[in-house]
Amino acid sequence: MHIEYMERALELAKKSEGFTKPNPLVGAVIVKNGRIIGEGYHQKYGENHAEINAFNSATENVSGAVMYVTLEPCSHYGKTPPCANAIVKKGIKKVVIGMMDPNPVVSGKGIEILKSNGIEVEVGVLEDKIKKLNEIFIKYITTQIPFCILKAAMTLDGKIASYSGDSKWISNELSRRYVHRLRHRVSGIMVGINTIINDDPLLTTRLDDTDGIDPIRIVVDSKGRIPLSAKVLHGNSKAKTIIAATEFIDKDKIKAIQETGAEIILTPPKDDKVDLCYLMKELGKRKIDSVLLEGGGTLNFAALREGIVDKVNFFIAPKILGGREAKTPVGGQGIGLVRDAIILKDMEIYRFGEDIMIEGYIL
Amino acid sequence: MHIEYMERALELAKKSEGFTKPNPLVGAVIVKNGRIIGEGYHQKYGENHAEINAFNSATENVSGAVMYVTLEPCSHYGKTPPCANAIVKKGIKKVVIGMMDPNPVVSGKGIEILKSNGIEVEVGVLEDKIKKLNEIFIKYITTQIPFCILKAAMTLDGKIASYSGDSKWISNELSRRYVHRLRHRVSGIMVGINTIINDDPLLTTRLDDTDGIDPIRIVVDSKGRIPLSAKVLHGNSKAKTIIAATEFIDKDKIKAIQETGAEIILTPPKDDKVDLCYLMKELGKRKIDSVLLEGGGTLNFAALREGIVDKVNFFIAPKILGGREAKTPVGGQGIGLVRDAIILKDMEIYRFGEDIMIEGYIL
Repeated sequence: MHIEYMERALELAKKSEGFTKPNPLVGAVIVKNGRIIGEGYHQKYGENHAEINAFNSATENVSGAVMYVTLEPCSHYGKTPPCANAIVKKGIKKVVIGMMDPNPVVSGKGIEILKSNGIEVEVGVLEDKIKKLNEIFIKYITTQIPFCILKAAMTLDGKIASYSGDSKWISNELSRRYVHRLRHRVSGIMVGINTIINDDPLLTTRLDDTDGIDPIRIVVDSKGRIPLSAKVLHGNSKAKTIIAATEFIDKDKIKAIQETGAEIILTPPKDDKVDLCYLMKELGKRKIDSVLLEGGGTLNFAALREGIVDKVNFFIAPKILGGREAKTPVGGQGIGLVRDAIILKDMEIYRFGEDIMIEGYIL
Repeated sequence: MHIEYMERALELAKKSEGFTKPNPLVGAVIVKNGRIIGEGYHQKYGENHAEINAFNSATENVSGAVMYVTLEPCSHYGKTPPCANAIVKKGIKKVVIGMMDPNPVVSGKGIEILKSNGIEVEVGVLEDKIKKLNEIFIKYITTQIPFCILKAAMTLDGKIASYSGDSKWISNELSRRYVHRLRHRVSGIMVGINTIINDDPLLTTRLDDTDGIDPIRIVVDSKGRIPLSAKVLHGNSKAKTIIAATEFIDKDKIKAIQETGAEIILTPPKDDKVDLCYLMKELGKRKIDSVLLEGGGTLNFAALREGIVDKVNFFIAPKILGGREAKTPVGGQGIGLVRDAIILKDMEIYRFGEDIMIEGYIL
């Protein structure tokens, strides 16, 4: 059975999580006479595709071998020449493909090249898992809008801070470490201006085991209230900072912010606030394929109401704080009737020590 | 190996969940020549113990057999004669016991009778599971205070109702059915006066498959605000209703409530409210071994702060409501610092369709 070869290809694909954006994660395995004779994965944006790395690693002649690759081989000249052609040239007998290329411009074309050259092709092996691994790529390539993950850490009774504002720390170290992996994985991290004013966070990626990549910091700040001393305007991160504001921001403040090196994106006002859908499109234009939303309750509700959120990650700590006035992960005005609630699907549960993480997708 | 016999005894014990209170759930299996020749469980308070039912069901002479029983056989004359003596008389060779009797007055005495009559005894098989099954009994017999389960149903963002007060239905039908099983399982159900005023619930047990037993309805109503038309004062339930109040209740109101058949428990005021610890002791005196707390946020916080809660069951629906003003499962003033939060241990996760239920014990 060939499923284990695709599992291996999927495993290889995962190795470069965070390093290929906005490209997909792809792994490839070459099998001949029941043995793996070559392996490769797309390691970094702009560098060789998985198939080429697999060829380069091959320990014997690949002619007549079977290739397992998680994504349909490309058919176009991008940063590198098309992989489909390379496969033909190498004399591969059969290609097993996890999922077709979701890019509408090229989908199916790689397969066409292979088939028209007499190569046997099988499509759709471990497809669900591979699609999940590349959910960011799939959304971005098909819509040009970033995939948005809303992350919150709360107590079992739904509080992200005590009534007095204390929130250090709701979730445990394992959970917080996972959040830093998420930050490394995405292109952008988004917070509201209240988070900057109250906590003045760095919003960088801090990992023990890898060189984490800092996400672009995006601050939703409709009226331009950000203090010029805020850490996101001065940290020594390689990632830039974007301040999203409306016409209500002062002209001099724009200049002062730009002088720190940050970019300003002005959106039309929507209910006097930043138009989040407009902002997401602007971020997409800047090659930001994914955004981790670490907002407070107000921004989180606005984001959910505007429909920009694709997935939620709620960390639940084994703690109870109580408090009528304590903040919850989703605030704002809220929805009036339960039957109109935002519905989540495909909920999955993960454990981080004693913390529980619930992941779900917006229906 | 004998573990499967104890597993069978445990399975038998579970059959009478809800019917033996305030007695424990006990199952017994008699094994001879590697075959089960008798089985029994304590079916109903006041009736035969598990061991006697196992003897009565025996298909052959039990002399020389091994008995597996989840709880140490009793040594005292209660509603029925002591099982330890019956075991001796029947010529049982060996007794394998899940857990010792937690009742401090008799613990170990049953084992003593068995051993002094030359019967081999082994104690502590599947002990953790058996203790969990009898957690209500263990707390009540050792403290005379009811075991209290706080139950709440909330959205993933921690709301038990929308900002406008809508809560029908947060959790799904499977979850709500489980809550009715819980109501059947416990002796009492406790709510705050606001729940009565806002929802006017019946608080009865509604099961499809069993004749559910209604719990005693306990309303925490410090100032005696309950409308005399409230359903809990008039439903045609066999279970009585208790109104817990303080000296702030009007004397005429007391009389009027009593005339509906309900009982009044007056507690000393604690911060002008019902003293919940005092109340729990009073409930214990009335043979109430367990209370399901289905309070709103105010009562739930008071109960947690006063330390009367043993276990929590939080049902989490795959829904988001948002709302700064929407009610959460634990309100009140709340705790000021995260490091002082109430901590939960032994968290376990159950799924009811798309709903998730998190169970935990107060540390």
